[in-house]
Amino acid sequence: MGSIETIPAELDASVVKITRSTELRHVPLPGSSEELSHSYCTDHMVTARWTAAGGWETPEVKPFQNLSIPPTASCLHYATECFEGMKVYRGYDGKLRIFRPDLNGERLSNSAIRASLPSFRYQELKALIAKLMQIDGLRWLPKSQPGRFLYLRPTLIGSGTQLGVQAPAEALLFIIAVPWPDPASRLKVVPGEALGLKLLASTPDTIRAWPGGFGYAKLGANYGPSLAAHGKAQAQGFDQVLWLFGEDRQVTEAGASNFFIVWENAETGKRELVTAPLENQLILPGVTRRSVLELARSRLNQTVGDLGAVEVVEKTFTIGDVEAAWKEGRVVEAFVCGTAFFITPVKLIRNGNVDIPLLKPGQTAGYAAQIKSWLEAIMYGKEGAENHEWAYLIENESEK
Amino acid sequence: MGSIETIPAELDASVVKITRSTELRHVPLPGSSEELSHSYCTDHMVTARWTAAGGWETPEVKPFQNLSIPPTASCLHYATECFEGMKVYRGYDGKLRIFRPDLNGERLSNSAIRASLPSFRYQELKALIAKLMQIDGLRWLPKSQPGRFLYLRPTLIGSGTQLGVQAPAEALLFIIAVPWPDPASRLKVVPGEALGLKLLASTPDTIRAWPGGFGYAKLGANYGPSLAAHGKAQAQGFDQVLWLFGEDRQVTEAGASNFFIVWENAETGKRELVTAPLENQLILPGVTRRSVLELARSRLNQTVGDLGAVEVVEKTFTIGDVEAAWKEGRVVEAFVCGTAFFITPVKLIRNGNVDIPLLKPGQTAGYAAQIKSWLEAIMYGKEGAENHEWAYLIENESEK
Repeated sequence: MGSIETIPAELDASVVKITRSTELRHVPLPGSSEELSHSYCTDHMVTARWTAAGGWETPEVKPFQNLSIPPTASCLHYATECFEGMKVYRGYDGKLRIFRPDLNGERLSNSAIRASLPSFRYQELKALIAKLMQIDGLRWLPKSQPGRFLYLRPTLIGSGTQLGVQAPAEALLFIIAVPWPDPASRLKVVPGEALGLKLLASTPDTIRAWPGGFGYAKLGANYGPSLAAHGKAQAQGFDQVLWLFGEDRQVTEAGASNFFIVWENAETGKRELVTAPLENQLILPGVTRRSVLELARSRLNQTVGDLGAVEVVEKTFTIGDVEAAWKEGRVVEAFVCGTAFFITPVKLIRNGNVDIPLLKPGQTAGYAAQIKSWLEAIMYGKEGAENHEWAYLIENESEK
Repeated sequence: MGSIETIPAELDASVVKITRSTELRHVPLPGSSEELSHSYCTDHMVTARWTAAGGWETPEVKPFQNLSIPPTASCLHYATECFEGMKVYRGYDGKLRIFRPDLNGERLSNSAIRASLPSFRYQELKALIAKLMQIDGLRWLPKSQPGRFLYLRPTLIGSGTQLGVQAPAEALLFIIAVPWPDPASRLKVVPGEALGLKLLASTPDTIRAWPGGFGYAKLGANYGPSLAAHGKAQAQGFDQVLWLFGEDRQVTEAGASNFFIVWENAETGKRELVTAPLENQLILPGVTRRSVLELARSRLNQTVGDLGAVEVVEKTFTIGDVEAAWKEGRVVEAFVCGTAFFITPVKLIRNGNVDIPLLKPGQTAGYAAQIKSWLEAIMYGKEGAENHEWAYLIENESEK
């Protein structure tokens, strides 16, 4: 009498099942072809299966391996997939840290909802990463090598046999860890040029995101379709596309990073650190973006060394505004930020047939360097920042 | 002395390698749970691997099986994936046909380019499908059951180990065949209501595609992000979303189908068959859409039975135009078309708090029925249409 009601299970890292690899992989050297492949993973991975009927199954840490995916799986046809980019850092105090992981957990859960995939308690993401790094951390980020990091890629895909166009009834969360080259080392050194990125402004025939779309969520669907424009920009000698939007050509993102500019306001003359706003849902709410804004608001509201105080502004601005500021000598510097590129200065923007140089040969981007240094101190537990609230410590690393 | 230049190999169906399954699968009955799963495949599948260095490798027909995909594969992270929807029909003359397959081949190759995946000679697609159906055709579409069909899903994914955000260096084309319920049987029978789809007009907070985007290509990225709106519409008792675009709320597509309306022009009084245009690249250039337009232009330019002649118009029109035409009694009928839904009448559109009924109880959509009947004659080789140029015959079906 009466139906049996089952409540779908929550994702629960505390019950993780661990299966250790019996064949450990070679740990690649910095600068090796394995590292430069961006795809050579550590010994283990996390997986957690979800079904619409039962909810989340017991998560596992198990040997890194290929996934067995039905050809009818939703993720292969309908891009039911979202991911996060994170890093795990070996600190100068020997400890292992991840940076503001709950922000990534929350964003992944929000992206999942946008892609009709299952959400989860966001705190579980950092707990699962900790389980993985307790096993792989010591071998892949030795305590003797402080200052190194691994890239982490939590990914959620629609995995069941389901060719009908509908929300996936089965999903798989997996987390892999990858040795990754230092983004600073990826900058091309060109004699007579400053060190920084060259951005090519997008044209109206290629638009990354649109109001009512999904530019604010970290869905696979934002990336694949942008590769063509990225490839064209690279073929012309640029590093990234500067994505513009709308008839007024608003500056939104640069490549897969957020974009910042420091300039003197034309009307007030005040120095501003400006980036695109989140309200219209065109851009990704980057964790590094948010951290840059918070650090600048709390520490750059006054002079720091040679750097004058800045007002921090999230507002819509156009490539025309950038060009005008440059012509009038009001631009101080520009940089992009994100997990993959961290904080990287921009040396040039090309918009149509106008080149906007932003860094002279020998010049460095002072604000970018200062913010980067503050963030690195937190990530790597440098002196005075060992216990910063933005760093999540991974303890109990396993010796064998 | 001089570098060795290799020309990447072309996709070539003529050299296909065939491995037959030793364990044949149960063929499901019409209406069975296997068929309703939309995911139960035939005994074999086609695969063809591509690498940036070598081009297309020898395609294979082999036993249906899961794919072994690296967790770092581009398709799982960046939605580097595109597909086609096609059908293979068992004719009333016992022959097997596919419908205008070169249009699908060309579109898949174009979608591939938009997703930074490898293109191919479009003619090879139909040749590969023929290889698959020569083996699976007789068992899965017996000659004793004319009028039945299988759904075909050619899919191309970025498959290599590649976490960097860049064009895939490795890809996999696969083709699977799936027993599929008759779309007409999927319509809910509601006493006192006509048989047709109920569409819910989208709101500005969810748009399917935008200018400069990829709505015109059959990328996975167009589908996953639309599932949320689709799910909400279904929860409210609707079958599909009617996708509107822009401040003027242009009618673009319905669900994953193209949308047509027959109305009397307000100014000229002439009867028109209207659908959204392809120029702004917002909608998918459907093969069924094109066929409807061509048939209507050549056969409905004069009275056919009870159906008055229509002028065929591809133009931008808004939901406001539809509402005005309905209020003024000028709407004759509306229908959607595509491979999955074929030609299906629309009985109601809800736009905000306005209901636009399009079919009265007991009424049928005459133009939709006539065009469907013409297309079925071609697909199933009915009398007088056995040799239509739109049908591609699959010959030499294998007896064992």
